[in-house]
Amino acid sequence: MSNGLADEGDLVPIDHGPRLEKLRRELTETGLDALWVTKAVNVRWVCGFTGSNGQLLVRDECVLLISDGRYGSQASAELAAGGLGGLVEIATVSGQPESALSGRWVSELTTKRVGFESDDLTTQRYERLAAALPGAQLQAQPGLIDGLRQVKEPAERERLELAAKIADHALREQLEFLVPGITERTFAAELDHRMRLLGAEDVSFATIVASGENSAIPHHRPGERSFNRGDLVVVDFGAKVDGYGSDMTRTYVVGGDPSHDQTRLYEAVADAQAAGVGCIAEGVRLAEVDSVCRSVLEDRGYGEAFIHGTGHSLGLEIHEQPMLSSRSVGTLRTGLIVTVEPGAYLPGFGGVRVEDSVVVTSGGCQPITHAPKGLTP
Amino acid sequence: MSNGLADEGDLVPIDHGPRLEKLRRELTETGLDALWVTKAVNVRWVCGFTGSNGQLLVRDECVLLISDGRYGSQASAELAAGGLGGLVEIATVSGQPESALSGRWVSELTTKRVGFESDDLTTQRYERLAAALPGAQLQAQPGLIDGLRQVKEPAERERLELAAKIADHALREQLEFLVPGITERTFAAELDHRMRLLGAEDVSFATIVASGENSAIPHHRPGERSFNRGDLVVVDFGAKVDGYGSDMTRTYVVGGDPSHDQTRLYEAVADAQAAGVGCIAEGVRLAEVDSVCRSVLEDRGYGEAFIHGTGHSLGLEIHEQPMLSSRSVGTLRTGLIVTVEPGAYLPGFGGVRVEDSVVVTSGGCQPITHAPKGLTP
Repeated sequence: MSNGLADEGDLVPIDHGPRLEKLRRELTETGLDALWVTKAVNVRWVCGFTGSNGQLLVRDECVLLISDGRYGSQASAELAAGGLGGLVEIATVSGQPESALSGRWVSELTTKRVGFESDDLTTQRYERLAAALPGAQLQAQPGLIDGLRQVKEPAERERLELAAKIADHALREQLEFLVPGITERTFAAELDHRMRLLGAEDVSFATIVASGENSAIPHHRPGERSFNRGDLVVVDFGAKVDGYGSDMTRTYVVGGDPSHDQTRLYEAVADAQAAGVGCIAEGVRLAEVDSVCRSVLEDRGYGEAFIHGTGHSLGLEIHEQPMLSSRSVGTLRTGLIVTVEPGAYLPGFGGVRVEDSVVVTSGGCQPITHAPKGLTP
Repeated sequence: MSNGLADEGDLVPIDHGPRLEKLRRELTETGLDALWVTKAVNVRWVCGFTGSNGQLLVRDECVLLISDGRYGSQASAELAAGGLGGLVEIATVSGQPESALSGRWVSELTTKRVGFESDDLTTQRYERLAAALPGAQLQAQPGLIDGLRQVKEPAERERLELAAKIADHALREQLEFLVPGITERTFAAELDHRMRLLGAEDVSFATIVASGENSAIPHHRPGERSFNRGDLVVVDFGAKVDGYGSDMTRTYVVGGDPSHDQTRLYEAVADAQAAGVGCIAEGVRLAEVDSVCRSVLEDRGYGEAFIHGTGHSLGLEIHEQPMLSSRSVGTLRTGLIVTVEPGAYLPGFGGVRVEDSVVVTSGGCQPITHAPKGLTP
């Protein structure tokens, strides 16, 4: 422990060996001989490398990580820390990464089926890949690794729980700033700073602080507006620990003493959120969670005011599949970590959103965000 | 002005009309009938829209901005603020953005030449674009808008100068933390926070604070190492104002009193940096700036220790073209804003980097970063 709640040195290391095995089984089942991985969080998930320039060629018996001279020693250290030391060949190149594809990497892939991440690979880099691997059959494979990343391992859950704990503590300390005269921007800056001092490596996304009429804008960016007594204030934020970012929203009234209409709106959203959390369990349809939240708000007359989906998964990215919306297909699985965040937004009046992140279990779910709820902190 | 140095309301608005005209002339010269713009900073540069989901179809007489329901009112407001109100049609779609391409947008583009950003567009989105525009001739156009963005307008320079001023002030206040016992991570968190309080909307990139032996790693990420008396500390950071991010590096010794070897290393790098800045002017070859810096370090015996390029342009992205390296082709133009940042890194001993950002002029350059140099602050 340092001066904060978190020290990444205290975390259980992530073991990348089983991930690589899982990926190889997936390649076999998909009928692929190799996979060209370009999406940065997928490179990180597979092998642990966190540099800004990394490409992986994953084959049955060997893996190649391609980066540049800035990252040679970092790559060696991170692969070793993740249990893949000696199992991954590292190539550092000064030009295009595809130039590292030569010799046996090329000859052995002639006529072979090589998947690529079509939802990440640019057309320019596709052309370079095709030129570097003549004779290979390139196959679009969008979302293949993203699918493997959906159910979180215990070590990933530990990181998200620590991130959420930092966010909880930071918010508690921060509530002294929920007073008239503080600007949205200052409130956001102070909250972000507290998370950093408590051990977060970064925020998990740009903190939303939306006050007064701005609270009716779901993705409002904090500006120079000052809090006034009686304002609704939506605070949506998270901390990042070892790449994993938390997500939580609370809504307050500045100075306490909410109006009747504010209380009525808040209770509708809070009840919708509790109902959504209450219905979560393995096997429940994703769209059902959205429907449960939406029904509560419709019953209270706020159906039209709930203008976004109910939630999303989170991990190395703040928005991961599966989502929880009316259009979502599929069911909840044990080990998914999802947000439940209904909101209601009344232009000119203000808005309310309440959000927790929960781990799906066989019989229900376990929240990882714990800050108290209520309009009056 | 708020509590900080910067309030975006005080900035001269960016006028997007001339940019759109410049882009249209470029399309004509390139032989294109339209351009499909997907890279977020390019969408922003052309029309001023800053949402996370935006695509532009630019034609001779009309422009279409495609986003989703979260951003409808924001798009209208930002287009109006940028002088394009009424000149750009806005479509908000709930599904794939390409679904907004229908009716006359499609029929009028049959057999026409439509450029796309092949360095940004994924293969999956390319397929969707091709399906949405049957009969159109899609042409890869990497870097077309990026090229137009290279020479900065006065309004862009104003934003970068304000960002650099915030960074200068934050660093001056921050030097009280340059004492034994402070961790790299805390130093970085406090510096970032000062920039936010002074009016930065964000940092322009993840702040580098590299102390002791870590200073020999150019892209070191701040960790739990505490400063010791006599440590070299490299601080590389910037502030962001209205999308534009500054960049500056200083190197200090904790507690003052540098050793002979530290002073010798520092003076070599500082002299190389001054020589690089001194040679900058319109018409000078990009590679020449790199060569001038490298020669000084070679003369002092540190040629092998300078393991990266000399600089890069900056603006809406922290790394823009043109770069200043030994492989750079072309010459400096008036209005470019570039960094000059030679460094020397001695594993086990430490490293030094000194960096300023300067505006290229016809006869020389004007720095926008002004923090005092020297190992002892």
